[in-house]
Amino acid sequence: MNSFGLKFRFSTFGESHGAAIGCVVDGVPSGLAIDEEFIQSELDRRRPGQNEFSTARKESDSVEILSGVFEGFSTGTPIAMVIYNRDQKSKDYGSIKDLFRPAHADLTYFSKYGFRDYRGGGRSSARETAARVAAGALAKLLLREVGIEVASGVCAIDGIESSELLFEHAKSSDIYALDPSCEQAQKDAILQAKNDHDSVGGVVCVRASGVMAGLGEPLYHKLDAKLAEAMMGINAAKAVEIGSGAESARLKGSENNDAMRKSGFITNNAGGILGGMSSGAEIFMRVHFKPTPSIFREQQSVDLHGNEVEFSLKGRHDPCVAIRGSIVCEAMMALVLADMLLLNMSSKLSSVKSFYEAKI
Amino acid sequence: MNSFGLKFRFSTFGESHGAAIGCVVDGVPSGLAIDEEFIQSELDRRRPGQNEFSTARKESDSVEILSGVFEGFSTGTPIAMVIYNRDQKSKDYGSIKDLFRPAHADLTYFSKYGFRDYRGGGRSSARETAARVAAGALAKLLLREVGIEVASGVCAIDGIESSELLFEHAKSSDIYALDPSCEQAQKDAILQAKNDHDSVGGVVCVRASGVMAGLGEPLYHKLDAKLAEAMMGINAAKAVEIGSGAESARLKGSENNDAMRKSGFITNNAGGILGGMSSGAEIFMRVHFKPTPSIFREQQSVDLHGNEVEFSLKGRHDPCVAIRGSIVCEAMMALVLADMLLLNMSSKLSSVKSFYEAKI
Amino acid sequence: MNSFGLKFRFSTFGESHGAAIGCVVDGVPSGLAIDEEFIQSELDRRRPGQNEFSTARKESDSVEILSGVFEGFSTGTPIAMVIYNRDQKSKDYGSIKDLFRPAHADLTYFSKYGFRDYRGGGRSSARETAARVAAGALAKLLLREVGIEVASGVCAIDGIESSELLFEHAKSSDIYALDPSCEQAQKDAILQAKNDHDSVGGVVCVRASGVMAGLGEPLYHKLDAKLAEAMMGINAAKAVEIGSGAESARLKGSENNDAMRKSGFITNNAGGILGGMSSGAEIFMRVHFKPTPSIFREQQSVDLHGNEVEFSLKGRHDPCVAIRGSIVCEAMMALVLADMLLLNMSSKLSSVKSFYEAKI
Amino acid sequence: MNSFGLKFRFSTFGESHGAAIGCVVDGVPSGLAIDEEFIQSELDRRRPGQNEFSTARKESDSVEILSGVFEGFSTGTPIAMVIYNRDQKSKDYGSIKDLFRPAHADLTYFSKYGFRDYRGGGRSSARETAARVAAGALAKLLLREVGIEVASGVCAIDGIESSELLFEHAKSSDIYALDPSCEQAQKDAILQAKNDHDSVGGVVCVRASGVMAGLGEPLYHKLDAKLAEAMMGINAAKAVEIGSGAESARLKGSENNDAMRKSGFITNNAGGILGGMSSGAEIFMRVHFKPTPSIFREQQSVDLHGNEVEFSLKGRHDPCVAIRGSIVCEAMMALVLADMLLLNMSSKLSSVKSFYEAKI
Repeated sequence: MNSFGLKFRFSTFGESHGAAIGCVVDGVPSGLAIDEEFIQSELDRRRPGQNEFSTARKESDSVEILSGVFEGFSTGTPIAMVIYNRDQKSKDYGSIKDLFRPAHADLTYFSKYGFRDYRGGGRSSARETAARVAAGALAKLLLREVGIEVASGVCAIDGIESSELLFEHAKSSDIYALDPSCEQAQKDAILQAKNDHDSVGGVVCVRASGVMAGLGEPLYHKLDAKLAEAMMGINAAKAVEIGSGAESARLKGSENNDAMRKSGFITNNAGGILGGMSSGAEIFMRVHFKPTPSIFREQQSVDLHGNEVEFSLKGRHDPCVAIRGSIVCEAMMALVLADMLLLNMSSKLSSVKSFYEAKI
Repeated sequence: MNSFGLKFRFSTFGESHGAAIGCVVDGVPSGLAIDEEFIQSELDRRRPGQNEFSTARKESDSVEILSGVFEGFSTGTPIAMVIYNRDQKSKDYGSIKDLFRPAHADLTYFSKYGFRDYRGGGRSSARETAARVAAGALAKLLLREVGIEVASGVCAIDGIESSELLFEHAKSSDIYALDPSCEQAQKDAILQAKNDHDSVGGVVCVRASGVMAGLGEPLYHKLDAKLAEAMMGINAAKAVEIGSGAESARLKGSENNDAMRKSGFITNNAGGILGGMSSGAEIFMRVHFKPTPSIFREQQSVDLHGNEVEFSLKGRHDPCVAIRGSIVCEAMMALVLADMLLLNMSSKLSSVKSFYEAKI
Repeated sequence: MNSFGLKFRFSTFGESHGAAIGCVVDGVPSGLAIDEEFIQSELDRRRPGQNEFSTARKESDSVEILSGVFEGFSTGTPIAMVIYNRDQKSKDYGSIKDLFRPAHADLTYFSKYGFRDYRGGGRSSARETAARVAAGALAKLLLREVGIEVASGVCAIDGIESSELLFEHAKSSDIYALDPSCEQAQKDAILQAKNDHDSVGGVVCVRASGVMAGLGEPLYHKLDAKLAEAMMGINAAKAVEIGSGAESARLKGSENNDAMRKSGFITNNAGGILGGMSSGAEIFMRVHFKPTPSIFREQQSVDLHGNEVEFSLKGRHDPCVAIRGSIVCEAMMALVLADMLLLNMSSKLSSVKSFYEAKI
Repeated sequence: MNSFGLKFRFSTFGESHGAAIGCVVDGVPSGLAIDEEFIQSELDRRRPGQNEFSTARKESDSVEILSGVFEGFSTGTPIAMVIYNRDQKSKDYGSIKDLFRPAHADLTYFSKYGFRDYRGGGRSSARETAARVAAGALAKLLLREVGIEVASGVCAIDGIESSELLFEHAKSSDIYALDPSCEQAQKDAILQAKNDHDSVGGVVCVRASGVMAGLGEPLYHKLDAKLAEAMMGINAAKAVEIGSGAESARLKGSENNDAMRKSGFITNNAGGILGGMSSGAEIFMRVHFKPTPSIFREQQSVDLHGNEVEFSLKGRHDPCVAIRGSIVCEAMMALVLADMLLLNMSSKLSSVKSFYEAKI
């Protein structure tokens, strides 16, 4: 239940304040150059504590590869990566250990498991997404070999919507903003919420370019369905759109249908996916993140003894999870595409035959 | 790739114009009373040709159980169900067999498989969803035994949004409308599009009540992620929301966090899911459907020889797929919940011990 | 739980005396010529009632393809096949419905599910293996396209061991005997047991030739492990050997190690598998079947009320299940190899790159 | 492909001479007391270098738990364990890096992946089984909670067969011998082979007691099939038997059928499994191991350039892999049973209902 993917498959482990978090990536084809600096750089993009728009907590997120790589190349065996939680202090969690914080997973973990690792959210902490980003970095290295690139950025914060989507700009923006014309307003909204001991929601755009037609496995391993699963499974995601998404439901067929010419699709309302398979057009998604549940205003909840309580949380948290969430969306899209890339290879008898004839 | 679920698992097979469609449902606990009339009645709700708002095609959708039931009860073995395509006529598909219809899966099936069953869309036809509804009926029978009910309805058509969600009303509405106050306007929009040889999009609401806390398996088999996958995998779905969904991304944390009291949650922005597990509140989703891609106006596309073509489709199609889609959403939610219900049973050691102690 | 394989995956359904048995085969590459006569001929090889060495029961085992084939070729979508139990009579099972027959699955089905379909053994009947043979026929069609052939035969009955393994001879033998020199003695042993109202065990040999090196997925989807699973899962199988098998445990390393020369392996104690992957040598297995549990002598058992009972079964049963079992072993080996064939295609980056470059 | 099990699932990673080996165990119910000393003691039983009957290599095999345990109890989240390869020296592998050692996986890894980590066998090294033993220790802790115990021992070496199976004795024997009366002869055979620069095969017995009836999931996740897969997947295993195994194929039905009385089964030819499910009797298996492929006599093979070569291996290896293999068999049986234990809990509707009623 802690694994994702069929052929390019990763599993994660670890809690926010345990010894370590990490992942095991299974199914990486042999012979892939494993660029450790790239993996670390991806983790650095997700790492908190880099500026005033994310939590002040420092996490080094230094990744160590334990297996599956020999002389710089993948061997085809599982690649295990571990990130030690080196700087976790023994802290007093007495104030929250019996509390079900609103909009957190405290209640549900307790309901399911009967007790929980309450230190920093345990397994439900967004810290686990570092393991996804490490796995996603391997997926990206694979995808690059066949010309696929994944990019992301923040297209809305606190309702302030981008009118342009400049993925190149997002890379150097402190808040991964896609539109420089509203970036400052978005930053202001974040800082305002932070000052108000509150938090804001946001929307992430993710796209993949260079995707050949035919990826995705009908009918219950469709590309769009698996992307939706991947994105909705990210902490705080509450809505997922593909292509024109919710807007499509307000269009007529004659408006929404993407006409095709020799040069390709004229429009891309479909977001690059038809019938659960890639169409050759750019894959495009929007992921909507709720505001960070950890706020520092007084809130009402119950504790595990059933008492009603009023309380104010303390600590350091991102005022807007969508920002770092964009890096996780990117990783998840890469992971889904890498899986689909490998799954697709046996679809046609002619491909199976050429493959084995080439080996002889 | 044509299966869904882990413990309550179904597989479907069949094409629109082949001999039959059907499903195999694996993991149904033994001893469940299999109400065949109920299964048929669910299929009848999805069945086309019932009124002017759906396609004029008639499909009897008569289901036959082949296995897994003995003396009216499930035996614990796979339940296979088949729906023969009894009335498929040998028809001339010459006009579309080489054509990639816009917004259809023609191009992508061809890209992946090198050739395709072009009769009525083959496997990509919405006809396949009848098999899901049959499987979903079994899931519903199981869920009822533990007090869970799933319901659905149409909350928007062509941008005309419901202000009330009356699930009881939807049951008897010709378009499964949730709000009688805008139902006529929604019907008019459908008929207008039909007259214009066009189609309209729509939005479905699905909910589950009576769901106990703790269903869902973190971290990569989360309830919300699997529901998103299930819904986005339905033909023509382009966006999926849970709880307040996209609206959450426009809220502050202090607005979005659902406070808890002894009596339960005060609000339900979370849509009944926290940390990927059910919280005990009602599960609520919205699924956005694009307009039917089959329209009868002139369109532009290419054919499989790479030629640009202009053409007008003929035939009979639903002017709004969201209507019958709502029954499919309901089935898919039931199927996900049934799977989660069974998966959850071994979460705690104390449950494992009581189970086996009770057997001795 | 009623499915086998990952990429070439089949599921079976059905009980001995229900409406039908059947299978759904998922993952067949598109473009494979589906030779229905061949599928039927494979079923005919397994079919009972053909001579005095098997049960006198007649089963027509006529297979019908419901989906996944268009104009004679696989489309890449699931191929469902159904075999109706046309001639099942309503029979009085009163004598055995409360009885736990020794060496049958009656007790265990009852323990697990609380009740059981007692008609002819229900799901545990060897009749289910007809569905495996149908699925296996598709696997064989695929394997032939890359030059792999699977064959089987009976190498021992009632302790009478073959000294030669002539797979061609087995094809035309009434008992699929591999060695004509002891075939008559084996037949006599079967008829002797039949006259004595008893049954005999037997041993099946299965081999695959033309298997390229590298099939099998380390470490927990090894070719030998999956073949062992496949064979041990056949009704009445109690031991499985690969290559020299149990004999290897009595050899020294210097005797057991297969030396390699340019021309290939000098010996084949390994049975064509090293480290869980095919070595290029012939794959060779032995499967040991217990004697048919249904015998017509007086036996002792208990019933579901806990009473001790003495009884004699009536009916018609194979005096030696190994005979028809050999056809099932052949099917299962083909199914495992077909799965491994497809799984192997993404092992190397260079293969992934050539595949996608060829598509552009 | 490096994972095993469905509900109690483990994945392993790591190579003989890489940074570390380890495992991630997913599906451990929450609330299980995690006895780290017990886990380490299991690893110590498998650890080499303890006496003259195993390799002289020293491996500390010190296990570190990275996640999933809080205050001494499992939390329900994945338990990752790592064993660092602390003492691996940088060694000259020049002599074997281009060589396909007979009866090793060198050729097949090269065929599949195009290159290989040749240091100490890489992923195909028996060192990986330490990770299985660590995972198996968790399985044993779970099984104990419901009264199941797994034990193993060596019943034959170099053809010297035990006449008694004393599992208690095996625990304290240097070679895990089951029969003290032939233990010295077995030891002598090992040392003789060692002196001759050769190796010997052996046979392991594994049993599970206290197993309730009904574990195992028909038809393609049968208990016997999964045990066969688990055992055949262990390095050097070449044959697997359940109950009377191969002997059953030489018996008449009247001899092989286990009669039942109120007190239970009179005999146990079935080895505790009927129809793929546990019958309540002791589960009993035999696993046959080939002799260690690494011997120090001159051998013939080819290298990766296709040249024929004669060579003698150097190094330190177990003269009989069956000895330490017995600990691995025990672990694998525990892992299969733990998975079946959890999978079985949703078989009956009545159990599902009681479970959820108890929660309200």
